[in-house]
Amino acid sequence: MAQRNSVVMVGLDPVYEKLPASLRQAAEGRGLPGFGGELWAIREFCERVIEAAGPLACCFKPQIAFFERYGSAGIAVLEEVLRGHRDHIFVVDCKRGDIGSTSEAYAKAYFHLEGQPEAPLACDAVTHNPYLGRDSIDPYLPYLRADKGMFLLAKTSNPSSVDFQDLIVGDIPLAERVAERISVWAEECIGDCGFSSIGMVVGATYPESALVIRKAAPRCLILVPGLETQGGSLDDARHFANLHGRGAVFNFARAIIYAYAGGPVAGQFGPEQWAECIGAAADYYRHRLNTALGL
Amino acid sequence: MAQRNSVVMVGLDPVYEKLPASLRQAAEGRGLPGFGGELWAIREFCERVIEAAGPLACCFKPQIAFFERYGSAGIAVLEEVLRGHRDHIFVVDCKRGDIGSTSEAYAKAYFHLEGQPEAPLACDAVTHNPYLGRDSIDPYLPYLRADKGMFLLAKTSNPSSVDFQDLIVGDIPLAERVAERISVWAEECIGDCGFSSIGMVVGATYPESALVIRKAAPRCLILVPGLETQGGSLDDARHFANLHGRGAVFNFARAIIYAYAGGPVAGQFGPEQWAECIGAAADYYRHRLNTALGL
Repeated sequence: MAQRNSVVMVGLDPVYEKLPASLRQAAEGRGLPGFGGELWAIREFCERVIEAAGPLACCFKPQIAFFERYGSAGIAVLEEVLRGHRDHIFVVDCKRGDIGSTSEAYAKAYFHLEGQPEAPLACDAVTHNPYLGRDSIDPYLPYLRADKGMFLLAKTSNPSSVDFQDLIVGDIPLAERVAERISVWAEECIGDCGFSSIGMVVGATYPESALVIRKAAPRCLILVPGLETQGGSLDDARHFANLHGRGAVFNFARAIIYAYAGGPVAGQFGPEQWAECIGAAADYYRHRLNTALGL
Repeated sequence: MAQRNSVVMVGLDPVYEKLPASLRQAAEGRGLPGFGGELWAIREFCERVIEAAGPLACCFKPQIAFFERYGSAGIAVLEEVLRGHRDHIFVVDCKRGDIGSTSEAYAKAYFHLEGQPEAPLACDAVTHNPYLGRDSIDPYLPYLRADKGMFLLAKTSNPSSVDFQDLIVGDIPLAERVAERISVWAEECIGDCGFSSIGMVVGATYPESALVIRKAAPRCLILVPGLETQGGSLDDARHFANLHGRGAVFNFARAIIYAYAGGPVAGQFGPEQWAECIGAAADYYRHRLNTALGL
């Protein structure tokens, strides 16, 4: 965040039907069998997004579902994307979370320590679903104490997050109780920057939760999904950050990667300039957030 | 369950180090690069387990983490296993669960409707983490109303499930509140057999939760992990079933697939008869459960 002067995380959520028309035409022209054309286009798209937005973003968040949707062939594309860009930070949004022995297997998919064989989906951080409790994260601790990170879901950005995350436990919502517990676990892996390698997810659509959680977990980085496209407002961004405007990273997926299809910068670019448009959108949100947070 | 006279689900949790020594030697003898040898052995092992236990089990539950651990190459092995055995029922234990647009992508990885292109990981049912609430399952409904199924986590079998699932909401634990809500959703897809295609997971290690949840959700099939190896007792099996001994399916992973390494039937077989031993273990638990449930 400091190096790039940016708290913008770019969500890599590639959906073939939404890719630029010229890219889809090029993919169809290749005459690849099965989903080969779609996957070629998705790979190409991710490369161009990373090239255009890379210098303006602090990190990328590939949502693995959009690759897993194609099975092993899709996962192979994600592996290539991750392997090709070790100069950027990648948070794989996989929301895994399982019993200890199983979580150990998941951890090996994403993380390795120095000197160990490279993990197939080697990345810098993952998201994690906390419903199974503490033993689901224990196998990740050796990695979290080295140079890897994890964002646990506290309050998610979707409308139905109210179903369970807002249930009242004692006198506070479950999401806040979960955040309290995560904050305690986070104390075990505080890094030189003062923040823990255990962070959490709090949706931009629930700024009132953010106010409470930010106070309860001062050492946790907060990953904030849901700004703009899902209805979260840039004006509320400061609720997720600390007094110095630090400690929060804001994910933009559709608002940046499909910026050419509409939004604040779309009008400045022709249809062939879709990559430039993506870069401009990343820069637009970088400036807006830096201003909102006083950075 | 009726066709095979079995409520045994066999968990496919292949861990290379635990595979039979002869199989590991054969794998090493092939001189494949990278994880090729391990994956060859895992593929072979799954085939032999399915062959040996197939007639004695009502279904198989591959835990995707043990394949994902190898990245796309591991997922490709799982795809081959699933594709090769359409005569068996497969519940892929993936515990995905995300916001609506993302859940839609996950659903396409595992399910397709008749006449649609085959899903890459096509299977009969998946497990699902409910923390994100109702809109995380909405994209699955067309499939659930056809011939697919889903088991949502209510109370998991691991020790740390107490961390959040036992928090008191109103006057009952969160897991029971989640189960109540799942039971309401389940009413939307009741099949000819009287059970819903939306079921839930309740760990064998918490039979007291099962008693409550079974009553609250009579139409839900309960997937019960954690018998034997994790400490759940066969004597409590009836707490998970209805009055007729129906409605519960019991997963055995290590207790069956590594039966040759120890357990009630290990002594009857030599080291080369590991597949026969796996079949015998499946039959042993089939009989034990049928007796316990009065089937």
